[in-house]
Amino acid sequence: MKIYDRSGFPNPARIRIVLAGKGLDSKIEFVPVDLIGAEHKQEAFLAKNPSGVVPVLELEDGTLISEATAITEYLDNLDGDPVFTGKSPLEKGLIHMMQRRAEAMLIDPVGIYFHYGTPGLGEALQAFKSPEWQGRTEWAQRNRQAVEEGMRYFDGILRGRDFVAVDYFSMADITVFAGLAFAEAAGMTVPEELSELRAWRQRVADLPEVRNRSGQQFLAEDARRLGF
Amino acid sequence: MKIYDRSGFPNPARIRIVLAGKGLDSKIEFVPVDLIGAEHKQEAFLAKNPSGVVPVLELEDGTLISEATAITEYLDNLDGDPVFTGKSPLEKGLIHMMQRRAEAMLIDPVGIYFHYGTPGLGEALQAFKSPEWQGRTEWAQRNRQAVEEGMRYFDGILRGRDFVAVDYFSMADITVFAGLAFAEAAGMTVPEELSELRAWRQRVADLPEVRNRSGQQFLAEDARRLGF
Repeated sequence: MKIYDRSGFPNPARIRIVLAGKGLDSKIEFVPVDLIGAEHKQEAFLAKNPSGVVPVLELEDGTLISEATAITEYLDNLDGDPVFTGKSPLEKGLIHMMQRRAEAMLIDPVGIYFHYGTPGLGEALQAFKSPEWQGRTEWAQRNRQAVEEGMRYFDGILRGRDFVAVDYFSMADITVFAGLAFAEAAGMTVPEELSELRAWRQRVADLPEVRNRSGQQFLAEDARRLGF
Repeated sequence: MKIYDRSGFPNPARIRIVLAGKGLDSKIEFVPVDLIGAEHKQEAFLAKNPSGVVPVLELEDGTLISEATAITEYLDNLDGDPVFTGKSPLEKGLIHMMQRRAEAMLIDPVGIYFHYGTPGLGEALQAFKSPEWQGRTEWAQRNRQAVEEGMRYFDGILRGRDFVAVDYFSMADITVFAGLAFAEAAGMTVPEELSELRAWRQRVADLPEVRNRSGQQFLAEDARRLGF
């Protein structure tokens, strides 16, 4: 199997955590996509994923699966023993609900803020941005606020609960974790007073499948190009 | 079990099709939510679903599940025989990928066009709309264009294939179907030349679990209030 992605970015991190958790790391060939150079917006990549985002999973027979949730469902069920996407109907329901909220309340607004409220990934991507959103400072700030609200929401969820959706580390936790790493890359740290979320984040960062896959280890090359 | 929703709306239709397909209709109590009156944006409803959208599933013990994908995962797996969300890892992956695309390429941009490019659901909801998007005709039109592109994309997918994700009627088809019904309610029909999509839509509309649940049968009361 191949994964088209880029080390150090949030959605790739989601799948790298799943791969580590399922012991599939060594069965994957990672094919780097130059996100800063907008390779994911060019025809060759769009033929693999018309949505123009990483990661994309390519199976041996050429079948392509994109969307982090879909790739996670595939990988997690390969061995018949899903540990991230739920075993019972209730677990499946709760995990999918919270993972969707983690996208809608964290990753999506962080993405808008990052691309429209900061220099984002730089020049090459400018041509692929929505012209209506460019220079709309209020819109970017509103998304930044939405991220802060999202953080408060998940802090509330984690009061008296160890994980986001069910009583173990699931796909929903992975999405929140990647969302917080992405927020940090965009200059938004989790406020001190959100102590539940901060404690949960530290616990998750220490899990063996998560360590060193937090989504903040940019390739040295990318970090230099982005001025980190 | 209870479902908080409103007859005739697109996301409620997705779950009503699943309920019919699983033979669960008679086990559900439907609790109507006054969407035109913005009931889903008030505190009592937000306590059930902080995202402020229908449908919401409430289990006997009070557990709440929202997000159409999550509710579908729960209902489809209750009897241990999932027919809409995939049995094999590959089916699960492909269904989740295409269902997410159906949201991103159809339902989401139709929603933006409907709420910001047409009178939408009327006056009561105005206060809950994003001030940055109001009156932004270009933005609404860009979303209308995105819907047209989405329709073309799914027409292409259906060339030489009976269903959207796998070789049977799945959650992904349900989402596309609801997206097209929503588009029609917003004044966007599937263009004549998209013959594969039109033929698929007719085939799907004739399925027993879909008939009379297409998402266009507004309650008489709502239709009158919306001037249909």
